[in-house]
Order: sequence, then C-alpha cells, then structure tokens
Amino acid sequence: MPETGQERVVIVGGGFAGLELARQLVKGPYQVVLLDKNNYHQFQPLLYQVATAGLEPSSIAFPLRKLFQNRPNFYFRMTEVLAVHPDEKYLETPRGIVWFDYLVLAIGARTNFFGNEHFACHAIPMKSISEALYLRNAILDDLEAALTTPEYDRRQGFVDIVIVGGGPTGVELAGALAEMRHWILPKDYPELDASEMDIYLVQSGKRLLPGMSEEAAAKSLEFLQSLGVHVVLGDRVVDYDGEWVTLKSGRKIYSKKVIWAAGITGNRVKGLDSSVLTRGNRLQVDALHRVKGYDHIFAIGDIALMEGDPDWPEGHPQVAQAAIQQGHNLGRNFLRKAKGKDLKPFRYKDKGALATIGRNKAVADLPFWKTQGWIAWALWLFVHLFALVGSKNKVFVFLNWVWNYITYDQSLRLIIRPWLRKRKEERDLTC
Amino acid sequence: MPETGQERVVIVGGGFAGLELARQLVKGPYQVVLLDKNNYHQFQPLLYQVATAGLEPSSIAFPLRKLFQNRPNFYFRMTEVLAVHPDEKYLETPRGIVWFDYLVLAIGARTNFFGNEHFACHAIPMKSISEALYLRNAILDDLEAALTTPEYDRRQGFVDIVIVGGGPTGVELAGALAEMRHWILPKDYPELDASEMDIYLVQSGKRLLPGMSEEAAAKSLEFLQSLGVHVVLGDRVVDYDGEWVTLKSGRKIYSKKVIWAAGITGNRVKGLDSSVLTRGNRLQVDALHRVKGYDHIFAIGDIALMEGDPDWPEGHPQVAQAAIQQGHNLGRNFLRKAKGKDLKPFRYKDKGALATIGRNKAVADLPFWKTQGWIAWALWLFVHLFALVGSKNKVFVFLNWVWNYITYDQSLRLIIRPWLRKRKEERDLTC
Repeated sequence: MPETGQERVVIVGGGFAGLELARQLVKGPYQVVLLDKNNYHQFQPLLYQVATAGLEPSSIAFPLRKLFQNRPNFYFRMTEVLAVHPDEKYLETPRGIVWFDYLVLAIGARTNFFGNEHFACHAIPMKSISEALYLRNAILDDLEAALTTPEYDRRQGFVDIVIVGGGPTGVELAGALAEMRHWILPKDYPELDASEMDIYLVQSGKRLLPGMSEEAAAKSLEFLQSLGVHVVLGDRVVDYDGEWVTLKSGRKIYSKKVIWAAGITGNRVKGLDSSVLTRGNRLQVDALHRVKGYDHIFAIGDIALMEGDPDWPEGHPQVAQAAIQQGHNLGRNFLRKAKGKDLKPFRYKDKGALATIGRNKAVADLPFWKTQGWIAWALWLFVHLFALVGSKNKVFVFLNWVWNYITYDQSLRLIIRPWLRKRKEERDLTC
Repeated sequence: MPETGQERVVIVGGGFAGLELARQLVKGPYQVVLLDKNNYHQFQPLLYQVATAGLEPSSIAFPLRKLFQNRPNFYFRMTEVLAVHPDEKYLETPRGIVWFDYLVLAIGARTNFFGNEHFACHAIPMKSISEALYLRNAILDDLEAALTTPEYDRRQGFVDIVIVGGGPTGVELAGALAEMRHWILPKDYPELDASEMDIYLVQSGKRLLPGMSEEAAAKSLEFLQSLGVHVVLGDRVVDYDGEWVTLKSGRKIYSKKVIWAAGITGNRVKGLDSSVLTRGNRLQVDALHRVKGYDHIFAIGDIALMEGDPDWPEGHPQVAQAAIQQGHNLGRNFLRKAKGKDLKPFRYKDKGALATIGRNKAVADLPFWKTQGWIAWALWLFVHLFALVGSKNKVFVFLNWVWNYITYDQSLRLIIRPWLRKRKEERDLTC
C-alpha cells in the first residue's frame, strides 16, 4: 500500500462486522486496508442451504474486491495474521508486514469442539462455504454408498445424520435435511427406503433455540417433530469415533455424519496481552470498541465482548445483527473523529430473531411481536434476501427459492470434488 | 439392481453419448444401468466459462438421478469400472460386480500429455468441472500473490498465462481471459498494471481451429490479436518445469500457469482384447457401434472410432454432436431390435462448428454458410443455451449471460477452497 498521508485503518476479517466497518470508513479520509483469508464475504446464515443443495456457494458469497471497486482509498489483501505487534503498530502476515495506525480485529469465531479431539477429527463443522460444500458432498456420497450396502446396520451409518447443537444452525439444518428426505429421496433414490434415514438433533439444554423465546422454542420443536426429526433434549454428545456417537445418557447412535453446530470460540490472534481474553476466547472491549488496554486496537463482531452496555451486561449475542451494528458504530466514530466530533458509545438495538424450519415453517421473535408459521417464514425470506450482499445475489437467490418452492426440488445435488494437483497416486505420477 | 426379466443394458459414462443413449433406452423394454464416477452430467463446451468465473459449476452440471426420476427401469451407480469381463458378461467396480446383457462404453477421453510427465505434473488440464474450478482458483490466487510481489520478473510468473492448444477450448479460453484482463482487472486490481498480464496461445499447427474452415481460423486469429492475445503458431511446447515453458523454437516463457488443451486420448478400460485399440486409444467399432470382435459390447462418443462411414473414412470428430448422434442411433437400434426391426448403420450429420472468442466475436461454419462476428456469436449463445441440460440451467445461464453482458462483469470471482477432513496440520490434530 502506498503512503498517502491518510491515517491507515487495517481491518482483519471481511465478515459482517468488518465489511460494514469498511463500507463506512471508505467514505472518510482514511486509507482502508481489509485483510481476509478468503477473497469473498460469506453470508453465514444461509450456509445450511448450501450444505443441503438448496443454494449455490456463489449465491451467498460476494467477492470483496468487487464491493469496493472505484474506492481509491481501499486496499484488499487475501492473507491471514500471524501476529500483532501493538507497540510497533504492524501486523505479520505470510505476505509480509502490514503497518497500521489503527487496527480493527473482526476475526470472528470458529467451531468450538470443547477441546475434544475426537470431535475435531471426526465431526463436520459448518462455519464456512468450504465446510458446507464438504457436508453436501458427504451427504450425497453416503446416499450413493447406501445403495450398494445391503446390510441394514451398515447402511444406517450412511443414511443417518446426527446434528449436535439446537441453536439456529442446528435447527435450520435439521429442518432442511428432513425436507430433503421427504421431497427428494423418494424421487432420486427410489431404491432407498427414505424412512430408514434418521435425523437426530441433540441439544444439551432443555429447549431449542436458547437465544429465542419459549414460544419460538416450543414451536420449532413441534415443527421439527412434524417433519420427523428425532429431537434429543437434555442430553449431550460425549464421544464420537467416526462411527459411534455416545451420549451422556449412555445412548449410542451409529452414524458416519455428525455435524457440529454446538458452539463457537473466538479465533486466536498472537501478540495481544493475555489479559484481554475473556469468556469464549473473546476480546474484552469498551463501549468505543477499544480492546482493553489498547487505544489504537479495536475489536468488533463475534470476537468482541463489550462491557458497559447497560442492557447487555453479559455482552452482546454473537449474531450478524450485533456485528453489523458494531461495525457501523465504529465506522461512524472514525468519521466523527475526522470531523472533530464526539465519539458515540455503542448501544445494541435488538431487532429480534428469526429461524426457519421448512416450507412455511419459521419462528420469529420481534421486539413487540412473536409469531410462528408462514408469516414468520415470509418474514425470514424477506429479511435474508434483503440482507444478502449484491443485487445479483438477491435476484438469483430469490429465483432459486421460487424455483425450489414451486418444484419442491433443487437441482444442485452435485458431488463436485476438488481437483488436486498433488493427488498423484490417482494420476500415477512420480512428481 | 433387481432381476426384472428385462435385458440389462449397462452404460458406462454419463457424457453426451451415454446420456442420449440412456434417454432413448429408458423408453424401451430394457433395464438401463448408468455408471459414472460423477453423479452429474457436465456440459464440457462451457467449462472455460467456469474457469474464467463467468458461470457457476451448477449451471453447466446436471444431477443424473434427477434426469431419470420416475423411470422405474433406470438405475444409476456412482462408480468406475475396474475391469470388463466380456465372456462372463460382468463389470468389476469398487462397489461390486455389475452383470450385463449388453455393455456400452461411453467413457470418453482425457487430457493427452503425450506421455510427458513434466506436463502431467505441472500443467493444468481442463476437461472437468473440478479442473475448471482449480484453474479459476489458480488464476485468482496468483493475481492476489502478484499484488505483493514487487519484483517485476517474479510477478510475471503470477500474471502471465500460457495456453497450449489452438482448438476450440484453447481459443475460447484465451478470449475469455483476455476479456477478463480488459474488463475486470483494472476494476478489481487497480494496483496491478493489466498490461503486464500476457496471455499466450501456443498452437503447433500453422493455424488455429484445425477442425474448422480457413475463414474461421483467420478470423479467430484476428479476434484474439485484437484482444491482445499473443498467438504463437507453428511452435510447440517441449518442456515445462512449473515455472519455465520451453518451446521447440528455443523460446522460453516464465509462467506458473500452463493450461493444457493440446489434445485428448481415450480413457483406458481393462479386459478388452488389445486389438480393439486404435488411433488415440479409441475403440474400433463398426457401423452398428459394436466394438470390434464383440457382439454385445458397444462404444460411442469420444472413445469410439467408427470405420465404414463413407463420408468419414478417418472416423468421426470427437465432438459433442457426434457423441449425441451416436448415442441416439444406438439407442434407437436397441428400440428397433426390441420391435424386431432392422438396425440402422450410423451416419454422421455434421451440423457445423462454432467457436466464440468474446463479446460479439465468434466464428461459425454451417453446412451452407460461414459467418464470423456478432451473428455467429448470437448463434453460439442460442445453440449452447438450447443444448444445455435442464430448463433451470437454461434460465440461469441465460440470466448470467445477460447480466454479464450488461454489466461487463461477473460476480463469481471466488476462491473457494476444498475443506479437507485430512488437512490435519492446519487444524493441529493428531488423528
């Protein structure tokens, strides 16, 4: 990046928080440098539809460079951060050193396997497009394998799916899989008995959707059960060897696919004082998003834990909304600062929560209204369509949804395997 | 597959030939078993648009199972053939044994590296969606790398691209890359000097598009040069070590990306008498598509070399049209046989050839008319749209093309990396 005389703000992470921040910052007298290990922003709320062959990856991903075309003060680097050097004000990356005047960490969170290596080794996470595609391939691969597996027990391992975690991801994934089983399996795999495919949703708590209302929890449970999902409440997965899932209650489930949606933990970053780390590996920040003890390093989004918001003494929920609002407020503060105005402490406005279980089945908690069923579902569609980045994505996702709704069928059941230069044995090469 | 009393026809390969054959056969009193290593049919003519971020993989791929829903006499198995046992009439596959009454080999061809391991190790083939995606990632990855490579020479290795082979694939890819450089690079990578990106198209022959007319060859050369592609005729690549391309003339080009579109060779199949193999590893068949020396084994598409078609003594061209017509004729012959009618020897009807170089730039050789420019281009769009499998794909590809045409920009420049369970080191696991 050239020295432009402008103050340089380096943003690490192009998720909801980092993206919104960048959008604000480029309007001001700053040199904005965005770092992300991917060259695209991914719309995580719809990952489960990629995993269940309902949407294309490209529909929920948007190239970061394209977003900031014609912004001369914007620079993107596809890389990751090896270490932060707060005093010297630079970042170490595999592509070299990046100097900053201000650093904003929007590095988000990753799947939390609670330190259990068996889970990390054998369970499938679903926090990224790559992981969602892996899951899509695994589901379809195993259905093919089931066809040529005459032994009932072994076949169960291929068709049964265990989802760990009863939050939005787990609930929405379970619902989508149940609908796939109902609408797709009989047509695509007439040789398979769809009723043999069991979908388990294991939630350690006594209820689903802990982040939402009792009504939402109850109704989503009802919806899932009406779709034939085995919802296991008040029990937890204690071990998984790749074939057998062991629950705390002693119950055992045989399945080759365990999808891990049981929690997240902050991504690590080297170089900061360990005292800034708090619950869930989140970085402790003040009402101005400053990381505790640093006046030129900020944190927003899932990685940040803010203290001082009277309505949220425990910190804000790790959801897209909070991330976007934090990015927006910090961006605005930078612009205010440039104009010599006072900075605004962050206040989170909870606009409510939505979760969809299936066709015409969703639950909505709005500030002044709770509703479940098709109205909530229509609301969910509208909100997500509206929130998607890129007008083309909006159009294509909308068309996909209309198409799928009318035909009861998607046409994305493709097992697209990576072509790996290094997969020599298959190409019998000695290089 | 159950024993239904129907004669079982096993088709290996769901490409143009195998797919058309299956579509005919399911109408008749046969049990149709289709084997393919992918669960989808891929529309190869548009692979280059996937590689250049113009189309989504799913737009040019169609799930084979979905195509034959509600066809009780159709069975699909996602697997490959290890060996054919002609006398015992069964196939060996990793999923087990498949018995057949009739076997049709539609296994197609693969990239021909002419036995040069350096090419096989370092060059990028483009015969499948997976390979096209690999190329897409490589192009975008290297552009990111170029940004942080101050040394001019090293940077050239990242931005320059060498395409080997002046057939339709090479020509269309070169054109698409040149347009990407012209329309996208300056917007997405303002820090890069687009003029630094050199695109070489190396063709050993004295002209491009050997399969088409002199007019088409001359005009496509003119189009490519007008787009700034370096077309190297009458020279050939003799070595490539992953960085330096060496041409027969002694000329050397430094590039990390060499795309290999220089020819194909028939896929191998074990178990047949070696005498059936002829030029280009193709299987010698008679006018009824029977593999020489076998009366119940057939071959169609790129893998087949038919003798006895008076107009094509050298055999038919290895193009989609020929494959489709062969699949159609063989399918019809099976239906005729079932009705006790006489079988029809195959006659290839050449409907002409098309190749597109860029916006409003294409060449067309029709039986009674040759044209180049925007009419040929419109024709190309229409023909390819029409030929695509699946109405949804038609709609979405059309919308994509309209969108790209109007905006001069696609939004598919995503580097989506495979998530590999086995990539332990990155996740520091010991499993």
